[in-house]
Amino acid sequence: MSGRSERRFSLNQWTTKRWSVAEAVDGCVRHGVEAIGLWRQNVAEQGLDETVKLVADAGLRVSSLCRGGFLTSGGPEALDDNRRAIDEAAELNAACLVMVVGGLPGVVPGEPLGTISRDLSGARERVAEALAVLAPYAGERGVRLALEPLHPMYCADRAVLSTLGQALDLAEPHPPAQVGVVVDTFHVWWDPQVFQQIARAGGRIASYQVCDFLSPLPADVLLGRGVMGDGVIDFAPLTRAVAEAGYTGDIEVEIFNAEVWAADPDEVLTRVRTRFGELIGG
Amino acid sequence: MSGRSERRFSLNQWTTKRWSVAEAVDGCVRHGVEAIGLWRQNVAEQGLDETVKLVADAGLRVSSLCRGGFLTSGGPEALDDNRRAIDEAAELNAACLVMVVGGLPGVVPGEPLGTISRDLSGARERVAEALAVLAPYAGERGVRLALEPLHPMYCADRAVLSTLGQALDLAEPHPPAQVGVVVDTFHVWWDPQVFQQIARAGGRIASYQVCDFLSPLPADVLLGRGVMGDGVIDFAPLTRAVAEAGYTGDIEVEIFNAEVWAADPDEVLTRVRTRFGELIGG
Repeated sequence: MSGRSERRFSLNQWTTKRWSVAEAVDGCVRHGVEAIGLWRQNVAEQGLDETVKLVADAGLRVSSLCRGGFLTSGGPEALDDNRRAIDEAAELNAACLVMVVGGLPGVVPGEPLGTISRDLSGARERVAEALAVLAPYAGERGVRLALEPLHPMYCADRAVLSTLGQALDLAEPHPPAQVGVVVDTFHVWWDPQVFQQIARAGGRIASYQVCDFLSPLPADVLLGRGVMGDGVIDFAPLTRAVAEAGYTGDIEVEIFNAEVWAADPDEVLTRVRTRFGELIGG
Repeated sequence: MSGRSERRFSLNQWTTKRWSVAEAVDGCVRHGVEAIGLWRQNVAEQGLDETVKLVADAGLRVSSLCRGGFLTSGGPEALDDNRRAIDEAAELNAACLVMVVGGLPGVVPGEPLGTISRDLSGARERVAEALAVLAPYAGERGVRLALEPLHPMYCADRAVLSTLGQALDLAEPHPPAQVGVVVDTFHVWWDPQVFQQIARAGGRIASYQVCDFLSPLPADVLLGRGVMGDGVIDFAPLTRAVAEAGYTGDIEVEIFNAEVWAADPDEVLTRVRTRFGELIGG
C-alpha cells in the first residue's frame, strides 16, 4: 500500500479491541500503519506516560483520543473529567479529543429506565453551556474538541447531538481550532442534509471516521458497526465530500462488532485495510 | 372521558394486533373510542366491503389507512398496488393513506443483505418520481397521501424518508389536499429541527401519531415503540407544536411492542387511553 489516501489510514484501537495500547501500537508498526486512534480507558491501563513513549518511539500519529463528553448530566465532576481528558489529549499530541456529549440525564445505556429527565432541549442547552467552559481550556492546551453527532437511535442514551448540522451550530460560537466536528459515516449516512452540512463544515472537520451500517442491526445496536462493504453505506460520495470540504487528515476505521472483536486482531487489521483500499482510499 | 382532545383518541389497530377489524371496531364501540386507524392486510382479511359497513355502522372515523409506499424499488407493480391502496382509502373514507416509502432497493427487513443498491440519493429520487404519478390519482379519488418520515434507524430497510423536513420538501410540489405528512412522535422526537419543521408543516399535517421510544431498544428495533410514559419522549411540547400548527384531526396511538401484543387487547386499550389522557389529551 503506498497511495496517499492509504497512508492516511488510522486504526481506531477499538477495532482491534482485544489489543492493549502496546499491542495495537505494535500491530500498527508491523502492518505499516502510520496513525492510531486511542481510547482513554486503554491509555489509563497502559499508563499515559508509557503510551506517549510507545507512540513516539513507533512514530505514529494519534488521530484522535476517544473520548470526552457526557456533559448532559452536568455537574463539576463532568467538567473536571473533561479537563483531564483534554490534558491527556495534549500529552498524546492527539489531533482531536472526540466528544460524545451524553444522552438524557438518568438514562443509562442498556439499563431499564429509572428516574430520568425527558427534557431534550434542556439537555442540549447543557452541552452548549459546558462547551463554553471547556473550549477555552482546550484552546489553552492546544487541543481541538471534536463534537461527534451520533446516530439518532442513540439520542436517549448516548448523545443528544444527533446531526452534523446541529454539531456545527454548537461549534459555531467557538474558534475552529478549539471546536471541530467528527464525520462518522455510520452516524451520518442517512441524513438528507449530510452533503450540504459537510460542505458547510469545511475546516471544522476534525476527524473522518469510517465503518459500515449493518442491516439488519444486531440485538445490541451499539454493535451495528460493520467493516466497510459489509453494510448499506455508499462510501465514495461521503469520502469525496469530506475531501472537497478540505479535510486532509487521517481517516480512522472504528468498528464495534461482536464478530470482529472475536476474530484475530491481525486478521482484522489486514481485512479492514484491504477494504479501506477498495472503498475509501487508493 | 369527555375532554375535546380525548374524543380525538384513535386506536391504530396494530396496537391491539390480535384483534381482527371486526373485533377492533367492536372494541372501539365498547370503549367509547370514536376513531380507528386500519391496516390494509387486516382490511383484506375482513373484506373491504364488510369493513366499510362495520365502520359505518359503528359510526367510527377512519383516521388513517396503513399503508401505501414501498416506492424505491420502482416498477409498475408498486404503482398499481398504491393505486389500489388509494382506492381502498377512498372506499373507507380514511382521513389519509399513510405512505412508508421503502428502503434501499434489495434490502429486506430482518434478512441478511443480498444484492442491494447503496444509491440512497437515487432511491430518494425514485420516491419523488412515484409521488408525481400517485398524487394526482389520489386527488381524483379524494384521498390524501400522508408521507411518513421514519426514524433514521429504518433508513436502509423501510424508509429512505428520514426527517419531517425531507417529507415537507417532497410534499411541496403537490397540493396539500393531495400530499400531507405524518408526525409520529417515535420517529421525530430526536430531531433538532422538529419544532421548526412542525411549524413549517402547518396544514400539511395529515396525521399525528403517538407512542413512546423505549430505552434500551429491544432486539428487534421495529418493536421499540412503547406505551406513552414508558419511554423517553416528552409529549407535551410535541403535542402543543402540532396543535399550534393548526392540526385538529384525530390522534392515533400506534404501538408495535411484543409485550403489548401479548397482553389482553381490552386491557391494552384501557391502558393506552389512560396514558393518552395523562400525557396527550385532557
